[in-house]
Amino acid sequence: MTGAESVINTAVAAGIDVCFANPGTTEIPLVQAIDNVAGMRAVLVLFEGVATGAADGYSRMTGKPGLTLLHLGPGFANGIAYLHDAKRARSSIINLIGEHATWHIPADPPLNSDIESLARPVSHWVHRNQSAETQASDMAEAVAAASVFPGRIATLILPNDYLLADVNSQAELRPIAAPPKVEPETIVEIAKLLRQSRPSALFLGGFGLRKRGLQAAARIAAATGCQLICETAPTHLERGAGSPHLLRLPYFPEPGMEMLAPYQNVILAGARNPVTFFGYPNIRSYFVAPEQNLAVLATPEDDIAAALEALADELGASANAGVMIDLARPERPTGRLTPETLARAVAAVQPEGTIIMEEGISSTRNFFQLSNGAPFHSYLAQPGGAIGLGMPCATGAAIACPDRPVITLQSDGAGMYTLQALWTQAREGLNVTTLLCNNRQYQILNIELRRAGIEQIGDKARTLIGLDNPSLDWVSLAKGMGVAAVAVETAEALTQELEIALAEPGPHLIEVRL
Amino acid sequence: MTGAESVINTAVAAGIDVCFANPGTTEIPLVQAIDNVAGMRAVLVLFEGVATGAADGYSRMTGKPGLTLLHLGPGFANGIAYLHDAKRARSSIINLIGEHATWHIPADPPLNSDIESLARPVSHWVHRNQSAETQASDMAEAVAAASVFPGRIATLILPNDYLLADVNSQAELRPIAAPPKVEPETIVEIAKLLRQSRPSALFLGGFGLRKRGLQAAARIAAATGCQLICETAPTHLERGAGSPHLLRLPYFPEPGMEMLAPYQNVILAGARNPVTFFGYPNIRSYFVAPEQNLAVLATPEDDIAAALEALADELGASANAGVMIDLARPERPTGRLTPETLARAVAAVQPEGTIIMEEGISSTRNFFQLSNGAPFHSYLAQPGGAIGLGMPCATGAAIACPDRPVITLQSDGAGMYTLQALWTQAREGLNVTTLLCNNRQYQILNIELRRAGIEQIGDKARTLIGLDNPSLDWVSLAKGMGVAAVAVETAEALTQELEIALAEPGPHLIEVRL
Repeated sequence: MTGAESVINTAVAAGIDVCFANPGTTEIPLVQAIDNVAGMRAVLVLFEGVATGAADGYSRMTGKPGLTLLHLGPGFANGIAYLHDAKRARSSIINLIGEHATWHIPADPPLNSDIESLARPVSHWVHRNQSAETQASDMAEAVAAASVFPGRIATLILPNDYLLADVNSQAELRPIAAPPKVEPETIVEIAKLLRQSRPSALFLGGFGLRKRGLQAAARIAAATGCQLICETAPTHLERGAGSPHLLRLPYFPEPGMEMLAPYQNVILAGARNPVTFFGYPNIRSYFVAPEQNLAVLATPEDDIAAALEALADELGASANAGVMIDLARPERPTGRLTPETLARAVAAVQPEGTIIMEEGISSTRNFFQLSNGAPFHSYLAQPGGAIGLGMPCATGAAIACPDRPVITLQSDGAGMYTLQALWTQAREGLNVTTLLCNNRQYQILNIELRRAGIEQIGDKARTLIGLDNPSLDWVSLAKGMGVAAVAVETAEALTQELEIALAEPGPHLIEVRL
Repeated sequence: MTGAESVINTAVAAGIDVCFANPGTTEIPLVQAIDNVAGMRAVLVLFEGVATGAADGYSRMTGKPGLTLLHLGPGFANGIAYLHDAKRARSSIINLIGEHATWHIPADPPLNSDIESLARPVSHWVHRNQSAETQASDMAEAVAAASVFPGRIATLILPNDYLLADVNSQAELRPIAAPPKVEPETIVEIAKLLRQSRPSALFLGGFGLRKRGLQAAARIAAATGCQLICETAPTHLERGAGSPHLLRLPYFPEPGMEMLAPYQNVILAGARNPVTFFGYPNIRSYFVAPEQNLAVLATPEDDIAAALEALADELGASANAGVMIDLARPERPTGRLTPETLARAVAAVQPEGTIIMEEGISSTRNFFQLSNGAPFHSYLAQPGGAIGLGMPCATGAAIACPDRPVITLQSDGAGMYTLQALWTQAREGLNVTTLLCNNRQYQILNIELRRAGIEQIGDKARTLIGLDNPSLDWVSLAKGMGVAAVAVETAEALTQELEIALAEPGPHLIEVRL
C-alpha cells in the first residue's frame, strides 16, 4: 500500500466518499489511490474555487466533511476565497494538498511556496505530514479536527515522496465529540428573562435553523410571544410550509437596526452577535444597540437544538405548541421580470424538498419573504461574503442530495467568478437549475456609491461598476460548458422554463434578464 | 482631497497610469479617486486572478509596476496564484487592498481576515497603512519597494476610514536605484574560464534575454564558441530574426540534463541555477550535475546586460561580432492539426513585433523551435507554474503595447482557470488572438502518470485527467464574453483564420482542435 492509499483508506473508513479535486503532478499518487481504493468518488473541477465551494455545500447538506484535493500552494490559493466562506458558514472541510517531495524543496522549485501561511487564515487546523508511516494517522487527525461541531476546516499537506512510499499503516479514527450542552442555569436564566421583561427577540443561527431547533423555537415563541429572527445569511435554514415564521435580519445596517430596535432583549441562539457587513461612517458595528439587553442562550458551537428544546420545556410550552406556516404559494407572476416577479416565479413552482442556494443581494432580495409558504425547502446563503460561492456550493449540495432539486439564485457579477462550476454540473449530471440574474452591473456597488452620497457617477467609476459593453451572454457561456440554457425576458417565460428545467434531469441555466 | 486621492495622485506622479481592478464596498473611495484624478485608467476585470496576471504582463512589457485594486482578503486571495507567478517572473506589481474601517475590525465582520498572512508568501513588501496622512507616503514606499530591479511585489493595505478621510499630503517619490553592477573581478574570472576550459554554456535568464543582453551574448559566443541556452520559461525573451540562436532548456529533467551534460562550465547570466519543476524519484533536483563547474556571471537582480557587455569587451569581441538568425519562416502547414502544424501556422504568419504569450506544455511545445527565424518578437512564458496565467498576462501585455499584436498560445485546461480575461479583452478592444489548444485533457497529467510507470489508467483516474464528457466549446465560451471566435480542424484553416484575426482589430479566439 502507498502512503496515498493509506490516506484515502482512512478517509473512506471515516465515511468520506466524495473528493472534489483538481490534481497536479505532486498529487498523482493520490489520483492513483482514489483509483485503487473502493468507495471514494472523484469529482473533477476545472478551478479550485469550485472544489472548496462544492465541499462547503456538500458539508452543509450532509454534516460530513467535504474533501478537496488541491495542487500545491497556488492550487490551494485558488480555493481560499470559498474556504473563507466555509469557515464563516462553520462547514466541515478537509483539504489535501500534495506538496513537493521533501528532498526537492531545498532547491526551491518554481511552484514552491509557504503553504502554511496561506492556509492558516482559512483553516482551524493545518498540518504538514512528517513521515510516510504517519500519513494515515494524520488523516485521522484531520477528520477529527474537521468534525468538531458544527464544522471546521482542516488542511493536510502531504509531501509527494511520502505519498509514493510503501507503508503498512492503518489509523484508528478518533471518536467525534458531541457538541457541548448549554448549562441548565443558562436555560433557567433565559427563561426568566423571557417571562419577566418584554418584548424579546430570539435571534437564531447555525444549527438553530434546522427543523429540530426551529420546532423548539416555535414553542418558545408560542409560550412567550418573543419574535423569531434569523441571521442575515444562514448556512442551512430548513423552512417553508410547516415551519415557524421567521423574520430575517436585513443586509444593510439601517433596516436591520430598525428591525431589532423594538426588542428589550435580544437572545442569541446559535448565532453570533450580529455585525454589519461593512463599517459605514456614523453607524455602529453591531446591530444590537448598547442600551438593549443582549443574552446568549447558545453559541454556534453549542448543542443549540437541545438548548432550544430545554428552554421550551423550562417555559412549559407543550410539545406541539407553535404556529407553523401553511402551504401558500404566490400566484404565478406575469409581466416584466423584476426581483419581485423572479421571486414569485420560483416560489410558485419550487418542488417539495428543493434546495435553494442564494447568492445575490440586489436581484434576489425578494425571494426569502415571498417563499415563506412554499413547500418545505432548504435555504442556503452566503455568510462569508467572498462572492462566487453560489454555483460551486449548489454543485456540492446536489452531489450530497441527488434526490432533491437544487435551484441557484445567482447574481451575474458573482457568477462570473466561478462559472466553471457549470461544467462539473454537466459532467456529473446534477439536477441544478441556475437562475442567472443578469442585471449587467455590480448593482451593490451602485447602491454603495449612492449610500456614500455620490449622485453623479463619473465615467471611470461607471467602468468599474458596469458589466455591460459587452454584455455577458450566459446562454452561450452555459452551452460552452455543456449545460442546457435559455434566456427569458418575462415572468411567464421564466416560470415556464423553470418548470421544464425542473422536470428534465441534469443541469439547466436560465438567464433572467432583469 | 481624500486619502484615496492622495494614493492615486502618488501613483500617477510615479508614472503609473493603469489600474487592473475588481473593487468592492471597502474600495469605493479608491473608485471615486480614480474617477477624480486625471491620468489613471481603470480596467475592470471580472475575477481577481485576471487583475494580477494582467499586471504581470503589463510589467513585463513596460518595466513599470502593474497596479491592481483588490477587495479585502478574499479578493486578494483570488489573485494569489498569479502573484506567485509574477514573483517567479520577477515582475513589478503593486496591490492596493481596501480594508475594513479600523474601528469596524474589532467586530470581526464577515469579510474580515488575516490579509498579511495571505500576502506575505507572494509579496516582497507588505504594509498596513496606519493613518490617513501617511497614505501618500506609504504609496511612495510601495512604488519604491516594487521598483527594485528587475521587479518586486508590493502589497499595501488601506483601511476604508483612512481612504475616506480628508488629507493634505503629497509624498515625495524615492529615487529608483540602478541594479548593482557585477564586480570587474567577476568579469575577468568568467572571461578566463571561458578562454581556458571548454566546452561552456552561457545560461541566460531574466533581463539577459532582452535585446541588449543578447547582442552581447552573441559576441561572447562568437569569441569563445560557448553555447547560448535560455531558461525554460523566460519572463520576456526578445527573439526571432536578427537575434542570436538560443537553445531552450527543456521542461522535463531527462532531456534538460542531456542538453546541459556536454558542458564543462555552465555560466549563469541572469538566471537561477536551474531546478526541475517537480522532484522525481532517482532524479536530482538540479539540472547541472555536481561534477560540472557552475559559475555565476550575474544574478537575476544584477545589471545583467552591462555584465554581458563587459564580458564581451573583456573577451575582445568586436562590437558587431555574433551570428544572428536570418528571417526564415516555416512554410504554411497543411493537413492535420498537431502541436507541430500549430506551431508552423503561427510562425508562418506572425507579424513583426508580435508578443507571444505561451501557456502550455504539451500542445504548444513545438513553437519555440519553429519560430526561431520568424520576424522579431517578444516571447513570454510562465516561470511560476501556477496555471491560468496565459490569457490574463496577454491582456496586460496588450494594454501595455497597443500597437503590437498579441498571440496567446493557450492550453485548454489552464485556460479554463481564467477565461474571464476574454471579457476584459473584448471590453478594452485589445488586439489579442487566443489560440485555444483544445486537446480535451490535462495532457500533462497523462504524461506524468506514464512517467510514474502507470500503464493502465483506471476509470476514476481518467475522470481526473479528462476534460471531455462534456467537451468544452470554446467558441461558445468566447462569444458569451463578446469575443469573436471560430474553431478549426485543419492547419490550412488555422493559418487562414489567424490571418483574419490579426487583420481585424479587437480580440479573437480560435479553438484549435488537436
